[in-house]
Amino acid sequence: MPPEDAPRVYLAGPDVFFPDAPARGAMLKAICAQHGLHGVFPLDAPADIPSAWKALPEAHRIARCNEAHIRASAALIANLTPFRGPSADVGTVFELGFMRALGRPVFGWSNAATPFTERTVAHFGATALRGADGAWRDPDCMLIEAFGLADNLMIDAAIAASGGAYFMAEAADRWADLAMFERCVAAAASVLRGV
Amino acid sequence: MPPEDAPRVYLAGPDVFFPDAPARGAMLKAICAQHGLHGVFPLDAPADIPSAWKALPEAHRIARCNEAHIRASAALIANLTPFRGPSADVGTVFELGFMRALGRPVFGWSNAATPFTERTVAHFGATALRGADGAWRDPDCMLIEAFGLADNLMIDAAIAASGGAYFMAEAADRWADLAMFERCVAAAASVLRGV
Repeated sequence: MPPEDAPRVYLAGPDVFFPDAPARGAMLKAICAQHGLHGVFPLDAPADIPSAWKALPEAHRIARCNEAHIRASAALIANLTPFRGPSADVGTVFELGFMRALGRPVFGWSNAATPFTERTVAHFGATALRGADGAWRDPDCMLIEAFGLADNLMIDAAIAASGGAYFMAEAADRWADLAMFERCVAAAASVLRGV
Repeated sequence: MPPEDAPRVYLAGPDVFFPDAPARGAMLKAICAQHGLHGVFPLDAPADIPSAWKALPEAHRIARCNEAHIRASAALIANLTPFRGPSADVGTVFELGFMRALGRPVFGWSNAATPFTERTVAHFGATALRGADGAWRDPDCMLIEAFGLADNLMIDAAIAASGGAYFMAEAADRWADLAMFERCVAAAASVLRGV
């Protein structure tokens, strides 16, 4: 267990959809504790739930609790490993944008190392289109960003501007390897605890 | 042109990736003006750019400008039509989360009417998995949310909690039909202008 006054870090990610999500959360929180941080997993029960929330449909109550968790945290670490397509999970990215607006540091990690442009072109394979200007487009003729970044520019830029960091490497098992997560935790501990 | 003091509404969406994005932006802004709103398209130049931003790489400068546009707007309307997979565009959802944290109304529209669960199961086709508990999982064994919502619960719940609205219908041309967008604009005008 981390000390009572350990800085709280919200752990955003599709990890909540894992086959054994509570066990996954416990694993992530244990790594945070080793670095003197209190990892907050989305499935954790918030300290206080306003009584009005109890009457909300489950999905809406979960969302309010997650927003409250983020507001009560000093930083956010997001699992940005591509999810069901070339980009990160939208729920995770919603939370990243939410914390960015609060002005606190946001960190990201991904177990895919190929940059966004190449990854998206590969995702579409032979159906990707290349214009006379050299720019890539998807089969719907939508421009594929080409800034040499890891994902949509809002994500990369928010992490950099917030004082956070983005770690990525190609992992043999995208949903098991926690090396990049641990680098995020160490970076967050450095920012929040000066260690 | 809308009146000088018209409420500003940020127009988030993958529309910036369209083949003729400036023309698309002009079309969206014209509909806003008809409802007495000042539509702010991400490609619009912000009023003031801090001189420090001029030295930033282009992608980071664009992101700072978009964040400034959102902070300067009274509400946000997001094009949440599924983009390169079962969910909305991550850049759009980042901005939705950003505005939600600011506590202002967020609106969403989509030209796909099938709910998230059925849409995601259909996306994976024969590779979707169904457990003994009846829950659907994707080929990576990740749970497919089943709350009867339009997309990830953070999105639906944020729109409802913010005082916004979510409009969706199946459109023959997903990237051309603006009927659901116009319903959002009318709803935003009602909230911001009381009309």
